[in-house]
Amino acid sequence: MSILVVGSLAFDDIETPFGHSPDTLGGSSTYIALSASYFTDKVEMVGVVGADFEDKHFQVLHSRDIDTKGIKKVEEGKTFRWAGRYHYDMNTRDTLDTQLNVFADFDPQVPHEYRKADFVCLGNIDPKLQLRVLDQILQPKLVICDTMNFWIEGQPEELKETLARVDIFIINDSEARLLSGDPNLVKSARIIRAMGPKTLIIKKGEHGALLFTDNGIFVAPAFPLESIYDPTGAGDTFAGGFIGHLARCESITEAEMRKAVLYGSAMASFCVEKFGTEKLCDLDLLEIEDRYESFRDLSKIED
Amino acid sequence: MSILVVGSLAFDDIETPFGHSPDTLGGSSTYIALSASYFTDKVEMVGVVGADFEDKHFQVLHSRDIDTKGIKKVEEGKTFRWAGRYHYDMNTRDTLDTQLNVFADFDPQVPHEYRKADFVCLGNIDPKLQLRVLDQILQPKLVICDTMNFWIEGQPEELKETLARVDIFIINDSEARLLSGDPNLVKSARIIRAMGPKTLIIKKGEHGALLFTDNGIFVAPAFPLESIYDPTGAGDTFAGGFIGHLARCESITEAEMRKAVLYGSAMASFCVEKFGTEKLCDLDLLEIEDRYESFRDLSKIED
Repeated sequence: MSILVVGSLAFDDIETPFGHSPDTLGGSSTYIALSASYFTDKVEMVGVVGADFEDKHFQVLHSRDIDTKGIKKVEEGKTFRWAGRYHYDMNTRDTLDTQLNVFADFDPQVPHEYRKADFVCLGNIDPKLQLRVLDQILQPKLVICDTMNFWIEGQPEELKETLARVDIFIINDSEARLLSGDPNLVKSARIIRAMGPKTLIIKKGEHGALLFTDNGIFVAPAFPLESIYDPTGAGDTFAGGFIGHLARCESITEAEMRKAVLYGSAMASFCVEKFGTEKLCDLDLLEIEDRYESFRDLSKIED
Repeated sequence: MSILVVGSLAFDDIETPFGHSPDTLGGSSTYIALSASYFTDKVEMVGVVGADFEDKHFQVLHSRDIDTKGIKKVEEGKTFRWAGRYHYDMNTRDTLDTQLNVFADFDPQVPHEYRKADFVCLGNIDPKLQLRVLDQILQPKLVICDTMNFWIEGQPEELKETLARVDIFIINDSEARLLSGDPNLVKSARIIRAMGPKTLIIKKGEHGALLFTDNGIFVAPAFPLESIYDPTGAGDTFAGGFIGHLARCESITEAEMRKAVLYGSAMASFCVEKFGTEKLCDLDLLEIEDRYESFRDLSKIED
């Protein structure tokens, strides 16, 4: 199954208590695509970069067999840049600088050969652009969507229009409370699922994730890691592993959905072990399966 | 197997966004004993109360077949009283008043017939008193201990002396960080287990609990409840269900330990549904098994 990924490509300047990593390849679609690439051999990207996005950066994506024909390079512009600093506890961060650059005028054009994509993963971008992408896809089997507080507060109506056309929606706990207006996550989930997405995933960072479907609630543990070097991109990496596993399933059942959450969690646990996307370029299938099994064991009860 | 429970008996004055419940029977040992009473028929309490602790209060414990011979009644004193108010999100509370009363001079005397207790559950009291209890028990099979930040900060040396004689230690995440001096819970667990307890449970409130043993880590989900009426006593109720399940096992294996964490969680999820101990007086075994199965299903992955 093919996966079309739409979102940002960026250069990040990341400071954590463990070090400083400037000019780090990042962006929501980069993390999603790299993560998904371990599960299916057809990952296609739509995005925009500037002249500073060099061949070596494309090479990172090509080394994982990711199709980059949908990435537009604007020679007279610069790539989106973000700078942030994580606090000691790694759970909170300050954004030090945001330069939208070519991303400010991003108008996603889905190449003709991508329009038959089976799965569409809408990274965290303006909901109007997310809608514009959906208008260009013929008949997707599954649409997955991410967003953030900036769009929930700034464009609630456009976001709701997008959500009406989304199958699986992935947000974090504070975003869920903001969007639903209810502090209780079970009630939040009911309110948000009524907006459109039949399936909702609420990420809780170091406390794991909740999956809400028609069949009930699944609680996925987070991996209790001793060392987290850089949390940047963990949420997008989760989404990539999640959709990646679904794309290789013959049919999408409740059981596969639960496994997909664990695969997403496993990929995210790798992501945070090194700076930026570094760890995501260098995994093999065996260690992914091993990490997945470790996740299963974390909450396993023998009969 | 018999369980000896030592801790406070109290009258609580509880305010939550859902109501106000004055003169509510509470205290750590009350919650532990009531919760454990569903799993084993021999629960013994050691504690102290005042003249205001009437027959009807003893009757609550007797109705669950709890042995109260070890509860000393001081006719010239008043029972320990606590008043608190929960905030809107139910995760934080303010203590409005604490009156130690007869609890200030509590000197636990273990009745002769309790000294052969198989399991000892030391509720959250002065670590010096916890030690004094252990000195009076002949040869306990298993010692479980709870504490709080007040003792970690005020009596670290006495607490460490207690911990050296404890098999299973139960605390919450902020207490684990405080005691270990490390913000990372995996590292905290290693540091704390080196103090004595081979098994450590770190409770994370609405985010579940972590069990650390020689065999690794188990992550237990919390039940995603729509309504929490009163969180008072949830941690003690967890401890009661946990030790209760272990007391009915033929041998204490890793698998039974994991199940015990889920039984503890199930009991705690009942506790918060009504004010004080009300819900804990009125359960049946079938609904406990049902809730336990629901907990298992929360994190179940089909093969």
